Amino acid sequence: MYQRNRIYISPEEQEKIKNTRILIAGAGLGSNIAECALRLGFEKISICDMDNVEHSNLNRQNYTSVDIENSKVESLFSRLKSINPNAEIHYHNVFLTENNCSEYIENIDIAINTIDFTSNAPFIFDEICLKNGIPILHPFNFGWAGCVFVINKWSESLNSIVQNDIQPEVSIVEHIIQNCKSDVNLLWLRDVLQTFKQEKGESSPPQLAPASWITAGICANLLFKLANNKPTKIFPNFYLLTAN
Amino acid sequence: MYQRNRIYISPEEQEKIKNTRILIAGAGLGSNIAECALRLGFEKISICDMDNVEHSNLNRQNYTSVDIENSKVESLFSRLKSINPNAEIHYHNVFLTENNCSEYIENIDIAINTIDFTSNAPFIFDEICLKNGIPILHPFNFGWAGCVFVINKWSESLNSIVQNDIQPEVSIVEHIIQNCKSDVNLLWLRDVLQTFKQEKGESSPPQLAPASWITAGICANLLFKLANNKPTKIFPNFYLLTAN
Repeated sequence: MYQRNRIYISPEEQEKIKNTRILIAGAGLGSNIAECALRLGFEKISICDMDNVEHSNLNRQNYTSVDIENSKVESLFSRLKSINPNAEIHYHNVFLTENNCSEYIENIDIAINTIDFTSNAPFIFDEICLKNGIPILHPFNFGWAGCVFVINKWSESLNSIVQNDIQPEVSIVEHIIQNCKSDVNLLWLRDVLQTFKQEKGESSPPQLAPASWITAGICANLLFKLANNKPTKIFPNFYLLTAN
Repeated sequence: MYQRNRIYISPEEQEKIKNTRILIAGAGLGSNIAECALRLGFEKISICDMDNVEHSNLNRQNYTSVDIENSKVESLFSRLKSINPNAEIHYHNVFLTENNCSEYIENIDIAINTIDFTSNAPFIFDEICLKNGIPILHPFNFGWAGCVFVINKWSESLNSIVQNDIQPEVSIVEHIIQNCKSDVNLLWLRDVLQTFKQEKGESSPPQLAPASWITAGICANLLFKLANNKPTKIFPNFYLLTAN
């Protein structure tokens, strides 16, 4: 299945990612990332989420209308196994919390944190991963832009920009806008943020398919780098890609 | 299905892309682009290809092991309809050639040219589209980097960098390396190109999932811009995104 990866990926690197165990915490944006990582060659993937698929997810997440009202993790498991029946895919129909995180990060090499910012769970998750020496990717969907933070023992923590915020997403977007390279035009993101703030948290943040796709591509690339001990930018620096 | 597109996309823009008819010529990389475009809201999609799915496609294209040996366009049709049963998806199990191109670009607004460079078909396709006032996207998979050219009546044509080349992909990669922004590190792509040249055309170019995902995200964004008459870079300028 992976012969067209040749030249870009050496046989040793391919073997390395095959045996690197990744945990995808959250099967929303995580559903896009899981498929891209599997097709690159990550064959040991665990997924945690307790949501069911909703019709409003289909504008960007990796589900179909047949999956609506079914468990996200079971739907994603089926999709991944249909692509590579030999892959070791494990799923847990569970919300990760302060109390249960630890058991799911046992025997994991890299974590991807896409847990909703509706509780302190994403922050606790990072803490427990770091205590166990596990690096974390934090991917974000900014509509037309894909964005990923790498958190490890040398990086800052997400808490350094998000302190007791009711809407951490707002602080994260502001961090991006203030610190992105000067040749990247993010005026459109500034406008979207302005409108979103006026909604005062009445609705979930808007998200588009292009950012989910771009973010999945970035994450698969960074998983490859981390698995093979290649350097990456670390938070508060970040990866931001957009064609907008 | 598209309510989470709010703020980023106005109701008028959403209606516009719903009714914009796109033709995807080639269901390899086109298979990734089709799904991203559909989830963004392009509901009128035609696809042309005559290949069947091969096992070696699964490292990056939008097919599963169940699809192997089946027609790409029929497999992709089923996937797209399962996501949005109301979308108008048409497929043609045909290779586009100088002689048959014209009939498939009738009633099309934007074309995506992912036809293999094994004949002059991709160049003829562009010519006929331009004669009919149809802009074309040319997406490319460069492993860790997604790349897209926009060709329209004001742009140069792909012929300006590829003249009677046996391997047009090589000239295209060289154009990218020579003209990319100075802060983008493409040394890895230069190395891959070197090794690929040494193979002397014995194998198809290597391709990775991350570039397919990133390219699909770029294409969906550019389709949105073209459909809504927003400005884009045009060839010989290009879109190139990578986290590598």
